[in-house]
Amino acid sequence: MQTVIIGSGNVAYHLAKAFTQNGISLAQIFGRNEKELQKISLELNIPYSTQKLEDADLYIICVSDSSVEDVSKIIIKKNALVAHTSGSLPKEILIGEYRKSSFYPLQTFSKSKDLDYKKIPFFIETENEEDQKTLTDLASKISENVMESSHEKRKYIHLTAVFACNFVNHLFARAKEISDAQEIPFDYFLPLINETVQKISEIEPKSAQTGPAVRNDQRVLELHEQLLKDESLEIYKTMNQSIKKMYQLP
Amino acid sequence: MQTVIIGSGNVAYHLAKAFTQNGISLAQIFGRNEKELQKISLELNIPYSTQKLEDADLYIICVSDSSVEDVSKIIIKKNALVAHTSGSLPKEILIGEYRKSSFYPLQTFSKSKDLDYKKIPFFIETENEEDQKTLTDLASKISENVMESSHEKRKYIHLTAVFACNFVNHLFARAKEISDAQEIPFDYFLPLINETVQKISEIEPKSAQTGPAVRNDQRVLELHEQLLKDESLEIYKTMNQSIKKMYQLP
Repeated sequence: MQTVIIGSGNVAYHLAKAFTQNGISLAQIFGRNEKELQKISLELNIPYSTQKLEDADLYIICVSDSSVEDVSKIIIKKNALVAHTSGSLPKEILIGEYRKSSFYPLQTFSKSKDLDYKKIPFFIETENEEDQKTLTDLASKISENVMESSHEKRKYIHLTAVFACNFVNHLFARAKEISDAQEIPFDYFLPLINETVQKISEIEPKSAQTGPAVRNDQRVLELHEQLLKDESLEIYKTMNQSIKKMYQLP
Repeated sequence: MQTVIIGSGNVAYHLAKAFTQNGISLAQIFGRNEKELQKISLELNIPYSTQKLEDADLYIICVSDSSVEDVSKIIIKKNALVAHTSGSLPKEILIGEYRKSSFYPLQTFSKSKDLDYKKIPFFIETENEEDQKTLTDLASKISENVMESSHEKRKYIHLTAVFACNFVNHLFARAKEISDAQEIPFDYFLPLINETVQKISEIEPKSAQTGPAVRNDQRVLELHEQLLKDESLEIYKTMNQSIKKMYQLP
């Protein structure tokens, strides 16, 4: 099966790398950003182009959500299978006379950070059973965790991931801002952060909650509000309000 | 040195366990909750009492912030060293004719979850150098990471920990609420969560940010807002507002 990846960002790079590492050769990596394509091409030994899209059986579109529709129109081959990799888009966003699908890896990707691809859940949606089998077999060469998922379910998977990953990372960024301002090394907090995360493999997060809000400790809550301002203060108030609500505190 | 721990909660239990595991015997564990004291006493082989506080050189108070002051008054021995374990209280909260100090372990404790005590940072504040040395030596038998810290600094350490631990755990709880409602197993998200945390040991959290807000993807942001309500919707809006502000997005 001739496979082409379209895009040169974090998802394109890591998918291409995962395929290559597992013996699946790619016919081409196609995109607009020649510099990034060149780097990926050189590292993974895959032909690239910014001009002419290779003829293929499977095209995997790894571009930002807002570009998926436009990019999908450049694929003119009939009878191809085309997949996007977005958590929030329906497969019908793809515009063309080909079979449409979604191939969604639930992970956060940065080019500079190695990943264990085996652990990444893949969620797949296709138009028919044959395509489902094709994409499931392909993903299973990379990952131990491959599932079918409707667009409806995928929307909620993506939303959950925004809370559990994107927002968590932003809390780390705001936390570091606070500790940096006091010249407290952020490394001090890594054991605490690791424990916070390890805990939820064993205990329900709701049962693992600690801190001033769940203790309803007004003195500390007021003290902290005095130390904060702007966005961090807003986060502080909103999170504590939500914690109090979850535990039915006054 | 005769040492007594006062309290029977998560911090009391884990400190008692860390001491015992490292060959430091405790003279007594003292508190109000006989059932909990009995359990700890039985597991760690430490005498307990709810009635008569043992005569000691060092008392470590491990009770909730709001009880520290009251509990500190029951220690009538002069020339003792008394420490509280709170991140947000000054050592002067302790009321009595003894030497006052703070002995703050930066970690989240749950009784049912084992911990690697070696990695826990301890922040110590005392009235004089001799007490500083006593508590530093004691903490160093448990942990590799023992530091002096003023009350001013400790307040910010605690505040940073609330963002990086308590709020992060609450995001997990809200995330699980969303996935539970759709019957999506929360286990799917554990590799993503682990990666989110591993990343920040290597990349600045600010540089590691992903998700719809930092991409300024209005379509997804609006879609997600339609899927949410109440506290989760408030969190969604507040976090995205803060992300946009940090990256100077419109």
